[in-house]
Amino acid sequence: MNNKEVIAVLLSGCGHQDGTEIHEATLTLCAIHAHGAQYQCFAPDIAQHHVLNHITGQEMPEQRNVLIESARIARGDIQPLSEYKAGDFAGLVIPGGFGAAKNLCTYAFDGIDCTVNDQVARAVRETHAAGKPLGALCIAPVILAKVLGKGTLTIGQDEATANNLIAMGARHEATWQGEICVDRENKLVTTPCYMLDSRVDQIAKGADGVIGAMLELC
Amino acid sequence: MNNKEVIAVLLSGCGHQDGTEIHEATLTLCAIHAHGAQYQCFAPDIAQHHVLNHITGQEMPEQRNVLIESARIARGDIQPLSEYKAGDFAGLVIPGGFGAAKNLCTYAFDGIDCTVNDQVARAVRETHAAGKPLGALCIAPVILAKVLGKGTLTIGQDEATANNLIAMGARHEATWQGEICVDRENKLVTTPCYMLDSRVDQIAKGADGVIGAMLELC
Repeated sequence: MNNKEVIAVLLSGCGHQDGTEIHEATLTLCAIHAHGAQYQCFAPDIAQHHVLNHITGQEMPEQRNVLIESARIARGDIQPLSEYKAGDFAGLVIPGGFGAAKNLCTYAFDGIDCTVNDQVARAVRETHAAGKPLGALCIAPVILAKVLGKGTLTIGQDEATANNLIAMGARHEATWQGEICVDRENKLVTTPCYMLDSRVDQIAKGADGVIGAMLELC
Repeated sequence: MNNKEVIAVLLSGCGHQDGTEIHEATLTLCAIHAHGAQYQCFAPDIAQHHVLNHITGQEMPEQRNVLIESARIARGDIQPLSEYKAGDFAGLVIPGGFGAAKNLCTYAFDGIDCTVNDQVARAVRETHAAGKPLGALCIAPVILAKVLGKGTLTIGQDEATANNLIAMGARHEATWQGEICVDRENKLVTTPCYMLDSRVDQIAKGADGVIGAMLELC
C-alpha cells in the first residue's frame, strides 16, 4: 500500500437518526489513519430530509444542509460530492446511519423501490467502473445494491433488509458484530455496525476490517 | 476493575467549533467499551453559545440546545447534567472541542477570568470530593483548573494556554500527540488531542490512555 493513498468518505449529515452515524464515520476516519492512508470527506450539497431530536425521535421545525452538517464530522475539511472524481481516490466508503437511507437515497421510505441521489449513484458507478473498492457500513450497502444491482453484501442479521438486498439483485451474507463481508470479484466490502446491537469497540473493529480489506483490494 | 463500572461522559454539543469535538467524544466512548466498562453521557440542558457553519466558520442564524445536540453523539442515551450524582459513577471525563470552552464555561471569551456553568462546576467538585478520577481532553482541562484551582494538567504545547492554567492555580506538563498527563494525587488525567495537529488514530491513543489511567485510579 502506498502511504499517499487517499480514501473518499461519503457522509450524509451528522447524527444517526437524520444523518451519518457519528461513531461509524469517526471510526472509519480513524481506521484510515491507523492504516497509514489519508481521507477526503464528501457530502451532497442538499437539504436533509428532516431534522430529528435524537432524544425524543420527534421532528424539529428546522432545516439543515447535508454538506454543512457533515462538515462537523469532517472538522471542516469536506467537499461537495459533485466534485468527486473516482480517478483521484483509492476507493469510496459510505458510513451508515439513517442519513444514508434518507438523504443519499430514499430506502427508508420506499424500500426496494427507492431512488438514489444522482450524485451518489454517479460516485458509486464511477468508482466501481474504475475497478476501485467500495465500502459500506450498516444500512449503506442498500445503496450499493440499488446502484450496482449485484454483489455480495451484508447488513448483519435482519431478514427483511437482507431480502430487499436480494430483490435488488445482490446476494446477502449474514454477519455478526465486527465481522466483514468481502466480495473480491466486485471489490465490495461491508460490515453491519449498528444494524446489530453493538458496542462502540465492535464498530471500531468492523470499520477497521472494512478499511483494511479495501486497501488490500486497491 | 469491575466490568460494571460506568464512567460519566460530559458533552457540550456536537461539532468542534461550537460543541463537543466529535472524534474525541466518539473515541472516548470507544475506549470505555474497549476497556470493558460502560458509559453514561450527560450534557447541560442549555442553549449553545452560538451555531457555526463548520465549513466557513461563520455564525448561522439559528439556536441549538446543548443537550439535544449532544444526543447525536450519545445515540439518544443521554441525561441532563442536573441529574448527575458522583456517587453513581466510577469517574467523569470531559472531551474537548470549543463547546467545552463556550458552553460549559466561558474560557473562549474570558480566558483566566472565565466562569464555569454551575452544573459543570458542581459535577467536577463532587467527583473530586468523592475521590474519583476526572479526565479531560484537548481544551477541557481549563475547566478542571478553574474549578479545582490545583493539579497537574496538559494542554499539549501551547504556551499561552499553559500559562493560563498556571494562573488558575494548576501546574502544566507539556505533552505531544497521544501522550497523557496523570496527576495521581488529585486523580486527574488529561491529553492534548486536537490542541496539537493530530491524526485521528492519535486521538484514539490519547483517549484510550485517559480511560485506562482513570480506571486504574478508580
